[in-house]
Amino acid sequence: MQTILAIKTRGAGLYEFTNDVIQFVRESGVEQGLLTLFVQHTSCSLCIQENADPDVRRDLEEFFRRLVPSSDAPSMRWITHTAEGPDDMPSHIKAALTSVSLSIPVTAGRPALGQWQGIYLFEHRTSPHCRELVLHLIGA
Amino acid sequence: MQTILAIKTRGAGLYEFTNDVIQFVRESGVEQGLLTLFVQHTSCSLCIQENADPDVRRDLEEFFRRLVPSSDAPSMRWITHTAEGPDDMPSHIKAALTSVSLSIPVTAGRPALGQWQGIYLFEHRTSPHCRELVLHLIGA
Amino acid sequence: MQTILAIKTRGAGLYEFTNDVIQFVRESGVEQGLLTLFVQHTSCSLCIQENADPDVRRDLEEFFRRLVPSSDAPSMRWITHTAEGPDDMPSHIKAALTSVSLSIPVTAGRPALGQWQGIYLFEHRTSPHCRELVLHLIGA
Repeated sequence: MQTILAIKTRGAGLYEFTNDVIQFVRESGVEQGLLTLFVQHTSCSLCIQENADPDVRRDLEEFFRRLVPSSDAPSMRWITHTAEGPDDMPSHIKAALTSVSLSIPVTAGRPALGQWQGIYLFEHRTSPHCRELVLHLIGA
Repeated sequence: MQTILAIKTRGAGLYEFTNDVIQFVRESGVEQGLLTLFVQHTSCSLCIQENADPDVRRDLEEFFRRLVPSSDAPSMRWITHTAEGPDDMPSHIKAALTSVSLSIPVTAGRPALGQWQGIYLFEHRTSPHCRELVLHLIGA
Repeated sequence: MQTILAIKTRGAGLYEFTNDVIQFVRESGVEQGLLTLFVQHTSCSLCIQENADPDVRRDLEEFFRRLVPSSDAPSMRWITHTAEGPDDMPSHIKAALTSVSLSIPVTAGRPALGQWQGIYLFEHRTSPHCRELVLHLIGA
């Protein structure tokens, strides 16, 4: 079973879509199986992180901004791929450091997430985008 | 087929559990298939690494300690999520930089690991924890 | 369905093998399913990145060289695992920061890659190697 999930982003940051995933699994009727999420882009990525305290999300975003600054920052002058803007090449790098696909077992009709785990799209570009994910589910 | 594997940790570091995974696959009777490991936490993660020389494990741990120091280190003063201790937010960051899920093909009744590959739980917290992983296996 | 794909590398860098993967899926006759790629080594890894502008590839390689320099660089003197050369331990670290496995849904007989996504082997060692990947495909 497959579907495309579209997520609208409004600048860099983590966008939670756990509930969309739970709903897809519930509507499939699958009780036990394997769910795969795959993002069809190279400047955003996927992340499973704590969804209790929003500070966690903000600190994560800040860490990646510091590790991979904009390509107009003095420390990033070596970057050559700048034609699409100073946030483009850092976005590709942040995507390579995180995940393009996630595999989550399905148990009792739900993704087997831990108590504090939320599923996030990690947008790395600064302008608004519409991102597409393929959701694949196998099971019975 | 699914099971929960519990791993007790005694502080930050890499804990190998390759043999538990091999045993789960063997007992399942599956000859060819796909094994998925999923960790139900946001402050530990998964890693496949060399299990020949223990120095590799120690150097890996040291690299991550240097890349993401404790939040009471001068270079990490920007961190806001500190309520759960100075090792908590760095743990979430290290988890985002590594893997929450791993997919390993099963061939001839065994995970198709390379000669030097071991499967590790990467504990990022400093205090002891009991970590739970979901193991999912599909095949025949 | 499984196969082994061997990729010859000639030093550190990103080696695209998207077409080999597309061909494997086409020859399988599977229309909808799940494809898993698994690399059987601990000093190279997998990456899905933009395959339009080759500058992206070069900048990605450069970022990882700067983040994890050779173990004979002054900033890396703390590394203890040096017996296999100054590029060995950094290779394990770069592998841990990227991916050992990738899961890609298959739609209409093809891997459901986005328009600009290419699949790369990320070789981290400086000498030539022959790398083996397990390709696993389930579906109908």
